[in-house]
Amino acid sequence: MKNCIVAQSGGPTVAINASLAGVIEQAASSGQYDKIYGSLHGILGILNDDIIDLSARLSDDTFLEALQITPAMYLGSCRYKLPKAYDDADTYEKIFAYFERHDIVSFFYIGGNDSMDTVLQLSRYASEHNKNVTIMGVPKTIDNDLCLTDHTPGFGSAAKYIATTMTEIAYDTSIYPLKSVTIVEIMGRDAGWLTAAAALAQTTYGLGPDFIYLPEVPFDTEQFLSDVTEKLNTKPNVLIAISEGIRDKEGAYISASSTTTDSFGHSQLSGAGKTLEHLIAHRLGVKVRSIELNLPQRCAAHLSSMTDITESVELGRAAVSYALQGATGQMSTIKRMSDEPYHVCYQAEKIELIANAVKSVPRNYINEAGNNVTEEMIQYLQPLIVGEPNVTYKDGIPQYLPLNHLYA
Amino acid sequence: MKNCIVAQSGGPTVAINASLAGVIEQAASSGQYDKIYGSLHGILGILNDDIIDLSARLSDDTFLEALQITPAMYLGSCRYKLPKAYDDADTYEKIFAYFERHDIVSFFYIGGNDSMDTVLQLSRYASEHNKNVTIMGVPKTIDNDLCLTDHTPGFGSAAKYIATTMTEIAYDTSIYPLKSVTIVEIMGRDAGWLTAAAALAQTTYGLGPDFIYLPEVPFDTEQFLSDVTEKLNTKPNVLIAISEGIRDKEGAYISASSTTTDSFGHSQLSGAGKTLEHLIAHRLGVKVRSIELNLPQRCAAHLSSMTDITESVELGRAAVSYALQGATGQMSTIKRMSDEPYHVCYQAEKIELIANAVKSVPRNYINEAGNNVTEEMIQYLQPLIVGEPNVTYKDGIPQYLPLNHLYA
Repeated sequence: MKNCIVAQSGGPTVAINASLAGVIEQAASSGQYDKIYGSLHGILGILNDDIIDLSARLSDDTFLEALQITPAMYLGSCRYKLPKAYDDADTYEKIFAYFERHDIVSFFYIGGNDSMDTVLQLSRYASEHNKNVTIMGVPKTIDNDLCLTDHTPGFGSAAKYIATTMTEIAYDTSIYPLKSVTIVEIMGRDAGWLTAAAALAQTTYGLGPDFIYLPEVPFDTEQFLSDVTEKLNTKPNVLIAISEGIRDKEGAYISASSTTTDSFGHSQLSGAGKTLEHLIAHRLGVKVRSIELNLPQRCAAHLSSMTDITESVELGRAAVSYALQGATGQMSTIKRMSDEPYHVCYQAEKIELIANAVKSVPRNYINEAGNNVTEEMIQYLQPLIVGEPNVTYKDGIPQYLPLNHLYA
Repeated sequence: MKNCIVAQSGGPTVAINASLAGVIEQAASSGQYDKIYGSLHGILGILNDDIIDLSARLSDDTFLEALQITPAMYLGSCRYKLPKAYDDADTYEKIFAYFERHDIVSFFYIGGNDSMDTVLQLSRYASEHNKNVTIMGVPKTIDNDLCLTDHTPGFGSAAKYIATTMTEIAYDTSIYPLKSVTIVEIMGRDAGWLTAAAALAQTTYGLGPDFIYLPEVPFDTEQFLSDVTEKLNTKPNVLIAISEGIRDKEGAYISASSTTTDSFGHSQLSGAGKTLEHLIAHRLGVKVRSIELNLPQRCAAHLSSMTDITESVELGRAAVSYALQGATGQMSTIKRMSDEPYHVCYQAEKIELIANAVKSVPRNYINEAGNNVTEEMIQYLQPLIVGEPNVTYKDGIPQYLPLNHLYA
């Protein structure tokens, strides 16, 4: 008897269940596993014996298709970071004893940077202790900051949400003939990929943001005020996209420059958008509003990118295929073969080259003034948001798989 | 020669252009008008001679269909409130002289409460001065607070956005086994209709908000903390929808209780969501996040309700039909004939019964505890969000009509 187990970890995206569907589909169709288990709440399910039999779900023909477009994580998530083996050998022994007891020969972990560190630690331990279990990572993060993969699952859908929402906000803010500034704060503490996607709203038929500021370029508030002032001389409504993680040339977050104290006497940190909103209100005296896109960026499955969903499925399948060929300690990756026509292939790379490293936006993807992106960025991003999955609406609301099993 | 003119005013919605399409379609097909003019930026276009010929747009077969699903306002908006005629007769003379000069016999104003006041003032002036111009209103507001119409255009789409987004946020926040509270702040300063739409996410297949607080019931922070504490004992992730306009029993806005001072020394008002976020953080010490849905509530045309779009077109058509039958000083309205099957008809009501009045949520639509809605509310709301319009995506982004003519 040979079984496999899969888990999900980190922050949710709308494509992480597509990768889960890919893992299940390939594991089932390979005929190499008797059971496909799901560990609930990441690696915690293994430590707490909280697992479900995913193979049993396959008796429902519609399961995998519905799973592909269900947002968040079908298996739940955790914020648990695996300690190093030399700090806590017990935990490792417990995990591998669990694998042995359940005849588990492959473990697939779908997640971001922290999860890839878990893949690294577990695969090292397996190799050092001659455990016959392959440990494979499947990437996931809306931040697009994992190395050695052209882009990450979840990013394309978040980028599509941002491009669409910026388009619609641009319509909303452009109807008054009075001067106004609108600042949209987008997720991305360290990497500006997601904020850059706002540029995709700069189409011939739409209205895009006038300025885009990423964390990769030091943010200068005086230059910012001067950019905005100049633009207001040429058009009434100025729209700006900023990363939550923009920081000044000393590396201090712009958001941190505006600690406020509320009437309860509590000190609180404003977001970067709010900080700049107040700056503009008080320095330029013009009508200004800030919008934090917040969670919908990563959970708006009704607006996911078909390209992203398809690729996420394929990355799940690829991880299984590589594992069955004997690979371990690797993560499945996307290699872009061409921009036009857009074409990718799927590979796997050693996890030690990926875990704990971050891919920032290269300087040539940002314009010289540091207030917009270049054509290279547009070319890179454009194919990732193409295509709309077939979402089923019931009573006017998208229908996704229930998550009741998480709290049974 | 007989012409008509149409304008839009107030805050944008995703359905106000559908009403414009209805006005144009009916005006054109009636054969009763030579030209259909559009006044840019509300009534200001008439005052500033800034109008366009909408009849000319009809040579493009796809114009009306594309217009129906374009968000914001094709004709632009204004924040101008017409003074009373006895305060400023000049303005009225200027407007009616303009009508006479351009052979305009009908004026259609699509908007909310302020715009209906303009319809009232202009129709009174016309009647008192024997001007042969019919003045008709077409309703519009995401707030759903206009009287004598079952509901208002734009509301159903905003409600669909909120129900869908609450569903997706519920997925996102339910994946961690750790206790957390998420507060979603929804538009509606005085009426809780839009916030109530969060209840539509309480489906059998989805996960809805645990509590809903509307401005119609005085908000008691201690009762709120007690509601949340009790719920956290039964489930880990508590999701709450609140109106931006919730207020305490003295009528003071909850948002106003948390004035903060930022590091620039500027005082700022927190939103109700932020205020309650800090309250929970400091009183319950649990992980808490607040989300302000902000502009996407009223501009996310990619997620509009087909029921709303269809009805908005019909209300535009109805206003023209009534005008052609000689009606003036009226607003087209929706009368609900039955819930199941959902069926409505279109009428017109005297504007003096509508302008400057507000329709609040009736108490029996809210539960006794004041922290959720009742089945009556669900029955009322459910049909309004049904159906998805056929949005065309180009390069991954919804394609809407360009608004370049607004700033030509």
